[in-house]
Amino acid sequence: MNLPIGIFDSGVGGLTVAKEIVSQMPNESTVYFGDTARVPYGSKSRDTIIKYSGQIVKFLQTKNVKAIVIACNTASAFALDILKTEIDIPIMGVIHAGAITAAKTTKVGRIGVVGTSGTISSGIYEKTIHQINNELEVIQKACPLLVPLVEEGLINDRVTDEIISRYVSELKSRHIDSLVLGCTHYPLLYKTFGRIMGEEVSLVNPAYETAKELKSLLERENLCAADDGKVFHDFYVSDMAERFSDLASSIMPGIVKKAGIVNIEEF
Amino acid sequence: MNLPIGIFDSGVGGLTVAKEIVSQMPNESTVYFGDTARVPYGSKSRDTIIKYSGQIVKFLQTKNVKAIVIACNTASAFALDILKTEIDIPIMGVIHAGAITAAKTTKVGRIGVVGTSGTISSGIYEKTIHQINNELEVIQKACPLLVPLVEEGLINDRVTDEIISRYVSELKSRHIDSLVLGCTHYPLLYKTFGRIMGEEVSLVNPAYETAKELKSLLERENLCAADDGKVFHDFYVSDMAERFSDLASSIMPGIVKKAGIVNIEEF
Repeated sequence: MNLPIGIFDSGVGGLTVAKEIVSQMPNESTVYFGDTARVPYGSKSRDTIIKYSGQIVKFLQTKNVKAIVIACNTASAFALDILKTEIDIPIMGVIHAGAITAAKTTKVGRIGVVGTSGTISSGIYEKTIHQINNELEVIQKACPLLVPLVEEGLINDRVTDEIISRYVSELKSRHIDSLVLGCTHYPLLYKTFGRIMGEEVSLVNPAYETAKELKSLLERENLCAADDGKVFHDFYVSDMAERFSDLASSIMPGIVKKAGIVNIEEF
Repeated sequence: MNLPIGIFDSGVGGLTVAKEIVSQMPNESTVYFGDTARVPYGSKSRDTIIKYSGQIVKFLQTKNVKAIVIACNTASAFALDILKTEIDIPIMGVIHAGAITAAKTTKVGRIGVVGTSGTISSGIYEKTIHQINNELEVIQKACPLLVPLVEEGLINDRVTDEIISRYVSELKSRHIDSLVLGCTHYPLLYKTFGRIMGEEVSLVNPAYETAKELKSLLERENLCAADDGKVFHDFYVSDMAERFSDLASSIMPGIVKKAGIVNIEEF
């Protein structure tokens, strides 16, 4: 089925998910929407996120998408269940695949989760992991400065190292052995987290796991695209198209073209 | 005239302006709106900021305000001129008073300006200072991490010190003697900026200067409130009322009550 996959996030972070989808499923086309006028989602309320996500899903449906990936942890936490009941194409978030992988990976039974304030206060990773195995201990930590630091380009920088070290100090002292990078920006800090957490801690990248889960879903539902070379990747944002394209090109080199502007409040 | 003064900002930052207004004009009532659903403004485009500001002005007019202060540098930079032509009550931003003070203060003729990406890329302080005195040199620096650092509570912290030191290093090496804190969050970092810049640099706090300018305007236009003890301060936000009230209470202790929620997109 040669229709595109819809992917959305509050901004550029979801491109780490889009990148994994393009890399694992090279025949699939994608339509990406980044809500750059209303970024960040991590500090907004449940009701607001549900409203924003609903508008974006309506927009993506005008692009004839065959499935939708909510490439944003906060929106996955708050809006996935409601959206599932409202549309008749498959829709998935980024929480489930990461939670399953973390639950499978831990040997000591203690999992750490880092994310935005919204994701952490929703408790969604803890709930999802406990649905898989009620005996696992989940230790969460909100890291509100990491998105601004990444967006300022301080990916390899001693300030970012220090801020991450402070955020994870409790997780380290409680000897977790599996850490979920529960925000789509954080895979860009994968190496730093790895160095600070040390070899005994496995990092779980929900972007990678979500793309794997999507691939299984498309195969199961017989929705995979044909290998006919007709692949496209379109990008839309609600504001600041040029800045988006610049940042996006550094995350997905050679894939991102000029982004279109959408007046998302009209949907 | 016992009607309230309307004040708005993208979030809590404008409370530094509200605080100065309440302190300098204890007889005046105020209605504050913080656009917490759509914060931050500093990284958004001109068109988006004009639209958002127009919606907020319409909301404030439903509260019968007698004058409006745009307590946000980005919105002042982008929306003030257009809003002036659209409403028939006095409206002022935070740029003008700060620019005049900086122009009067400098002895060497070199002024530094720090602010968000939006304010700095608008060039509004440079333009306004040059309208006052075309021979002054203005050196600008965008500091996108400072708002997140303040909102994370890292006001007295070595990470914030280091980030500020990096941001102002060029301003220091070019020997400015007057520095405009061109974002309403930055007065909360006044002491840190003062320590890092040293005694030879005067800091200009536009919140303080704007309240002074407003006082003159109310006196000139015969709009001052009577000293009848009937003073109120109302607060509204577009999202996350509780978090706002918590942060706001630390900036204006004893003044901030529970904030009301407004669906600002309907205006």
